[in-house]
Amino acid sequence: MELASKKICDLLVGDRVDCFFIVKRVDLKTTNSKDKKYLDFIFGDKTGEISAKLWEVPLEMEDMFKESDLVKVRGTVTSYMNSNQFKVDRIRLAVPEDSANPEDFVESAPLDNRFMFQEIGKYIASIKDVDIRNVVREAVEEKKDKIMYYPAAKRNHHAIRSGLLYHVLTMLKLGESISGIYSSVNTDLLYAGIILHDLEKMNEMESSELGIVSEYTIEGNLLGHISLGVKNVDRICDRLNTPDEKRMLLQHMILSHHYEPEYGSPVKPMFLEAELLHHIDMIDARVYDFTQAVRDVEPGSFSEMIFSLDRRRIYNPKL
Amino acid sequence: MELASKKICDLLVGDRVDCFFIVKRVDLKTTNSKDKKYLDFIFGDKTGEISAKLWEVPLEMEDMFKESDLVKVRGTVTSYMNSNQFKVDRIRLAVPEDSANPEDFVESAPLDNRFMFQEIGKYIASIKDVDIRNVVREAVEEKKDKIMYYPAAKRNHHAIRSGLLYHVLTMLKLGESISGIYSSVNTDLLYAGIILHDLEKMNEMESSELGIVSEYTIEGNLLGHISLGVKNVDRICDRLNTPDEKRMLLQHMILSHHYEPEYGSPVKPMFLEAELLHHIDMIDARVYDFTQAVRDVEPGSFSEMIFSLDRRRIYNPKL
Amino acid sequence: MELASKKICDLLVGDRVDCFFIVKRVDLKTTNSKDKKYLDFIFGDKTGEISAKLWEVPLEMEDMFKESDLVKVRGTVTSYMNSNQFKVDRIRLAVPEDSANPEDFVESAPLDNRFMFQEIGKYIASIKDVDIRNVVREAVEEKKDKIMYYPAAKRNHHAIRSGLLYHVLTMLKLGESISGIYSSVNTDLLYAGIILHDLEKMNEMESSELGIVSEYTIEGNLLGHISLGVKNVDRICDRLNTPDEKRMLLQHMILSHHYEPEYGSPVKPMFLEAELLHHIDMIDARVYDFTQAVRDVEPGSFSEMIFSLDRRRIYNPKL
Amino acid sequence: MELASKKICDLLVGDRVDCFFIVKRVDLKTTNSKDKKYLDFIFGDKTGEISAKLWEVPLEMEDMFKESDLVKVRGTVTSYMNSNQFKVDRIRLAVPEDSANPEDFVESAPLDNRFMFQEIGKYIASIKDVDIRNVVREAVEEKKDKIMYYPAAKRNHHAIRSGLLYHVLTMLKLGESISGIYSSVNTDLLYAGIILHDLEKMNEMESSELGIVSEYTIEGNLLGHISLGVKNVDRICDRLNTPDEKRMLLQHMILSHHYEPEYGSPVKPMFLEAELLHHIDMIDARVYDFTQAVRDVEPGSFSEMIFSLDRRRIYNPKL
Amino acid sequence: MELASKKICDLLVGDRVDCFFIVKRVDLKTTNSKDKKYLDFIFGDKTGEISAKLWEVPLEMEDMFKESDLVKVRGTVTSYMNSNQFKVDRIRLAVPEDSANPEDFVESAPLDNRFMFQEIGKYIASIKDVDIRNVVREAVEEKKDKIMYYPAAKRNHHAIRSGLLYHVLTMLKLGESISGIYSSVNTDLLYAGIILHDLEKMNEMESSELGIVSEYTIEGNLLGHISLGVKNVDRICDRLNTPDEKRMLLQHMILSHHYEPEYGSPVKPMFLEAELLHHIDMIDARVYDFTQAVRDVEPGSFSEMIFSLDRRRIYNPKL
Amino acid sequence: MELASKKICDLLVGDRVDCFFIVKRVDLKTTNSKDKKYLDFIFGDKTGEISAKLWEVPLEMEDMFKESDLVKVRGTVTSYMNSNQFKVDRIRLAVPEDSANPEDFVESAPLDNRFMFQEIGKYIASIKDVDIRNVVREAVEEKKDKIMYYPAAKRNHHAIRSGLLYHVLTMLKLGESISGIYSSVNTDLLYAGIILHDLEKMNEMESSELGIVSEYTIEGNLLGHISLGVKNVDRICDRLNTPDEKRMLLQHMILSHHYEPEYGSPVKPMFLEAELLHHIDMIDARVYDFTQAVRDVEPGSFSEMIFSLDRRRIYNPKL
Repeated sequence: MELASKKICDLLVGDRVDCFFIVKRVDLKTTNSKDKKYLDFIFGDKTGEISAKLWEVPLEMEDMFKESDLVKVRGTVTSYMNSNQFKVDRIRLAVPEDSANPEDFVESAPLDNRFMFQEIGKYIASIKDVDIRNVVREAVEEKKDKIMYYPAAKRNHHAIRSGLLYHVLTMLKLGESISGIYSSVNTDLLYAGIILHDLEKMNEMESSELGIVSEYTIEGNLLGHISLGVKNVDRICDRLNTPDEKRMLLQHMILSHHYEPEYGSPVKPMFLEAELLHHIDMIDARVYDFTQAVRDVEPGSFSEMIFSLDRRRIYNPKL
Repeated sequence: MELASKKICDLLVGDRVDCFFIVKRVDLKTTNSKDKKYLDFIFGDKTGEISAKLWEVPLEMEDMFKESDLVKVRGTVTSYMNSNQFKVDRIRLAVPEDSANPEDFVESAPLDNRFMFQEIGKYIASIKDVDIRNVVREAVEEKKDKIMYYPAAKRNHHAIRSGLLYHVLTMLKLGESISGIYSSVNTDLLYAGIILHDLEKMNEMESSELGIVSEYTIEGNLLGHISLGVKNVDRICDRLNTPDEKRMLLQHMILSHHYEPEYGSPVKPMFLEAELLHHIDMIDARVYDFTQAVRDVEPGSFSEMIFSLDRRRIYNPKL
Repeated sequence: MELASKKICDLLVGDRVDCFFIVKRVDLKTTNSKDKKYLDFIFGDKTGEISAKLWEVPLEMEDMFKESDLVKVRGTVTSYMNSNQFKVDRIRLAVPEDSANPEDFVESAPLDNRFMFQEIGKYIASIKDVDIRNVVREAVEEKKDKIMYYPAAKRNHHAIRSGLLYHVLTMLKLGESISGIYSSVNTDLLYAGIILHDLEKMNEMESSELGIVSEYTIEGNLLGHISLGVKNVDRICDRLNTPDEKRMLLQHMILSHHYEPEYGSPVKPMFLEAELLHHIDMIDARVYDFTQAVRDVEPGSFSEMIFSLDRRRIYNPKL
Repeated sequence: MELASKKICDLLVGDRVDCFFIVKRVDLKTTNSKDKKYLDFIFGDKTGEISAKLWEVPLEMEDMFKESDLVKVRGTVTSYMNSNQFKVDRIRLAVPEDSANPEDFVESAPLDNRFMFQEIGKYIASIKDVDIRNVVREAVEEKKDKIMYYPAAKRNHHAIRSGLLYHVLTMLKLGESISGIYSSVNTDLLYAGIILHDLEKMNEMESSELGIVSEYTIEGNLLGHISLGVKNVDRICDRLNTPDEKRMLLQHMILSHHYEPEYGSPVKPMFLEAELLHHIDMIDARVYDFTQAVRDVEPGSFSEMIFSLDRRRIYNPKL
Repeated sequence: MELASKKICDLLVGDRVDCFFIVKRVDLKTTNSKDKKYLDFIFGDKTGEISAKLWEVPLEMEDMFKESDLVKVRGTVTSYMNSNQFKVDRIRLAVPEDSANPEDFVESAPLDNRFMFQEIGKYIASIKDVDIRNVVREAVEEKKDKIMYYPAAKRNHHAIRSGLLYHVLTMLKLGESISGIYSSVNTDLLYAGIILHDLEKMNEMESSELGIVSEYTIEGNLLGHISLGVKNVDRICDRLNTPDEKRMLLQHMILSHHYEPEYGSPVKPMFLEAELLHHIDMIDARVYDFTQAVRDVEPGSFSEMIFSLDRRRIYNPKL
Repeated sequence: MELASKKICDLLVGDRVDCFFIVKRVDLKTTNSKDKKYLDFIFGDKTGEISAKLWEVPLEMEDMFKESDLVKVRGTVTSYMNSNQFKVDRIRLAVPEDSANPEDFVESAPLDNRFMFQEIGKYIASIKDVDIRNVVREAVEEKKDKIMYYPAAKRNHHAIRSGLLYHVLTMLKLGESISGIYSSVNTDLLYAGIILHDLEKMNEMESSELGIVSEYTIEGNLLGHISLGVKNVDRICDRLNTPDEKRMLLQHMILSHHYEPEYGSPVKPMFLEAELLHHIDMIDARVYDFTQAVRDVEPGSFSEMIFSLDRRRIYNPKL
């Protein structure tokens, strides 16, 4: 008989349930004192993550599961170190008959990815300088498949399915409204900078189609998405014969968008749109992180320490 | 016979002119090798500043001029250390018959101060929380005279007549458009933070009605506008019986808006609107500084090193 | 039959004892592999702290204990990770018939709190400037109940019952003797600064009457005891009509006493007594920490790494 | 009648001479008190630099001289602020009849540039990996004209004619001898890294054929020689179809060779040859700077403060 | 019956073996939930280290083993937290009949220590200045026993038997080849600096004759090897009547060889040989650490994070 | 006829006077535009310093004056760059007939040096540990001549005649009173540390008998007074056969007394008396600097920026 199913955010200690989860991580480990093997999982669904253990591992299961698999699991919710944990009794890979769509079990951007792609296309179309527009269009076109599902980060802000598209689109909206306030802003440059700035995260990190990043690529480690981004624009500009000044401006915006050398930018922004690109990037990242941080926090209370926010604990005002 | 008059930005080496200028600084000095007294001025008008010397100082003129005076000057434009300098032949204080209005000779915010004050009033009226609205209204009301002409700084961004009003109004527009993009932003808090954040600069610095800051006040030095701002809100909340939570939130926004301890914020922003306040403040300051920096710079060239921008030289793109 | 009782500092691995302890922390946890609940305690008495476990938790005990409770415990001393641990066999709340006074089981300042309060009162009386004296007297009077038991910190120096009184009194003695050496010191300012500098720790942290701090308050986190201290003096000065200069001097001393921005002082000391306040605070904190660090260290050996002393290991000289 | 001629390093206060000098800098200025124009020069020859003034400037001379010009000058050596200064009486551009070769008046690398180029060619030929060898050969070949005279810096180490060639060749010798000591070093990678690491300084700075740098280029400022170097290798590898791994390794060495983010390297060296490249670069720079610093310093004395050596004063041991 | 023996680097999970190991660390601990005692070891041999547990400890074994003991062990290889672990079934101290030489079970420098000592002697002999040569010879002679086996560090680079000799000899080779390239280098100073720079590590750390450091000495902690080194040279120079200038130069090289104050050098190098000493020290340390880091890493992969290399992960190029 | 004489602090612009001054610095310079030689002086007396010029320099006067000379001067007080300047009309070296004692024209410690030496002797006599007492007595005895007049610094705190004695004596008084408050302080160690900590400043700097420091010595630059101090104690302990532990403790106090590595202390204080030594040193330095800073400042005003106080402007409270 099928047990009740629940979302991760609703699980309570003592619940006994049947659920579909995505495998976010899995390791075969051995218990300390007894030398028995067990599987150590992190499961996820749209609402959160939970650590889980399968204490008796049949031999055939030792290598059965990998990241981004959708699994059906039966078990009990226990408590460990003040957090919920899931004790697995049964587990199997999802099968077509389950009619369970993996995408329904990962957190995704709140907007449809095709819609976001279209919206970004409109911003590209609004770039008046034909050289700049062509570079941007080409850069997006080349990655039009991966961009549909890539997150914007392995952890931290926008580490969700289609998170990169969502990050870029929201930044474009910010760029548009800021440009409406300051007449000196060149929107061609600003929109181009916004769209190009993080594109090479798609070569810096390996992501499954569910938007789950398993690791950084070798060139991601050795060169980083900023240098990859500069090279990428260079390659496209070579092909499109983009004039030198424009190529240089686009590359400077990518190069300087992290602002501080210790965050990877060897030069600081030296023209207005490069400067704005940084601040718009910060705002979108911070709104995401602050909003996430207090999602489950009562008004009048603090979140846990958030590492990506310099270990701050974020307060949920009681208004 | 009256000579031609010119704006400072139009003066060329060799020009001989009659001009009205504002005295931005004046010192009585003695020449190095000859022990002769001279007056060392900085003159200003709406278009810029120029260093000037009066080489032979009649005794009665030694103490005649002070900062913010409007003067009528005749002299010649020379060059010193690659900059223009003004050699004064005659100088006198402006008199009513000159029909010269000092305000016409200082750089002012590009919008009328009464209009800006009204616009800010509309934002205040839009604050739904009556406690917060009352605190903000009271804080502005108390300073309604000085706020009409105060600059936002002694040097750097918005160091112009009515610069503070202009800085606040532009930040409110930014806050409004950003809040339109992120539904989680509480505009009551954000607008209040924006309006309150720099108000005590009016007690931190001494400014003439022309918006020229001669110096920091003693309590400006010993306490700083951030601590003064916290105290000011405290005093107003005491009078208005503002609930503790709201008082604390407003004070935290003031306290954290410089973000880094070394820039004067003992705590980092701990809720979303405090975080946004900082970034909005940065954007408005940086747009101002970048725009100023390249005002006289040819496209395709760099500005001088700008100290308030970490000694960067700003580039004017050639598009 | 009652077993022998021991102080925590005397417990040896293998001891089986009946003791009264104060609960310094308690959490209900679940064992990793077995999902069984247990209570994880930190117990304390006048002589130190010990980690403890109650492995089988009757349902009615799950919520029975909380911080600052006095409990009677029977159990065995074991060893875990090179430290002593206490395995609880029986535990109950202390009852009046036990005739056990909780204050006898927490570390307290070495002087009687009423005596210390009186001594501080003498220093207040010695302040010649009536305005300053009144502010200080008022500030202490308002907190005369809490100051009797508050510690000076959650951890680190003077984190003991009545630690704040003891810290202030010792600093006053230092201030008095230093002023005897340098005639330029104004003792009115210095004594006032010493007494006021940490008073708002009583609003920054929540402490039980045993001097055990459970957590920081919300305004402790959002504003910090330094800003709270400035506001507090402002409020009192408003009421007492204290002249502006004196109010400002007192506030500057509070504001600058941590010296470095990254430790919470937005301004550095700008007059002599503010500068001295910082060094006197440092000396008293450091003597406390160094003395504690080597309390149980053999001459010729080093302590463990002390986190509050930049992870130094402190040496006990062999003289 | 022709006066005696002297090298700059031999000039003494009071000397009256006829000399050929290179113009290292020239500005038209106006005297402070008199508003008279004068030309402010820095002259150089193989042995050093001297500040110079032409106090009465005929109109036709105001724009006659520019950087890197060879001039013939008559004048007197004076002293100003403890340094020698040259008071110009007569000055004219050198003419063919003078039979004076500008190259004889600038400091050059101590080895012949064609010889150095050849030697570097031998190191290239010794690279066993054909892909790497081709990239390096191509990169050098493309710049074979400019590399003959470019300095390695605007100021500081190797800021002399053909300084870049000399810097690279000496580093190759260091690399060769270090590789002879550690068998794990891959000389293909190391030699390639050495030759490529600074090549784009030739696009970062504008140099005359005398090796005198007037200024940084726009892309030198906006992108820097490190990013230019990565792009340059990318372009060459595209053309030569260099395998991805090798391209990435070469680019990583360029990217990381300044080691610290604040000196322009967004990543730290992550393999042995990249790490060695940095230290070899440091050694060659430091030997140059230390040797220069004490060139004119008596044994047993200190040099002036050297800015490129963190303001150290360098000691000349008395052995 | 004897089981197979294996080197640590060859052990696989599930192996059951008889081995000789060196005890690198041993602690008597108690299990968390059961309060049973066990011995927690780190074993080592020439090829690496492995964590090990003896779960049931007979009373007589509780204090039987100490660091640097050679033991014979039977047990099984298990896995814990993704690392191999050794479950000990039997263990005893090695006895003469085992004919097992402890030195065969610790990692040693790749060259024979007597050979290295001799080679260093040749460098000493090549020092032309008789004062400097005598100081160096005396300093080495005084420590000629301990230097045969001392490592150069407790952890990190050259933390192996005779590691100090090996570090010094390799640095001398580097110094020799670098001096061959730069004629301005005084090899007397450089060789002396290299040999003297770390000698007092032999008083800063306690090492067994197997080159295993158990701890820092008291004076190692209170003064550090740099100050000890300065004092040591002073004492020797007093005895040998070394001229002041030479004594001072030698001491400056020791004092400045860590370069940065936060790494223990109160002064920066102020002459060439002191500067070179630092860079040569760095190169030898870094080659060691990088080579170690990738010893077991597949080409095309990264090592774990290396703490002594600022937490970098080192890449093994795939060429 | 003799003109009136005045102290430097009393000179007013326009005064024409005959004065005795001490030459604090003198340079032969040449005027910029005219190439005429002049002497550029800094004169001092007990009350301050003044810049001075002798515009026409007779040949025989070019080398007549040097630092620490007492001169008789006639001239006029002028103003340059907002500071007083002295225009010299006549100048000659003081002669015996002037009956002017150079010591009356330099700022000295406010106590008699023989008295201070005696007082320090009493503290030495109070050291109970005979080994420590002997080291301290010997160290002072060896320098008993120079210590009578040496300042404690070239600039900044206690840069006056006998400043070192005064600094040490005041610190001893502080140490005594602090030890009266904390019973755990070992006064033997603390007094020894105070007396020894700066003694080697007498070898780090060259001072005339007037307490005017012309420059740092070579070993002052290459080793610094901290390392010199450690060596000095080592040498004395060798001679006196001081036990190792005591020698080490004394050296650690010297080594750590600057606290931060970037101020020259390679180790931080690791026992209580070493920690206190640092804070006592700071207090005495800061009281000196703050008191000096406001010596001529009106109550209610700020001093100039003080470089030794991190560029703070010091406030003189208006009480």
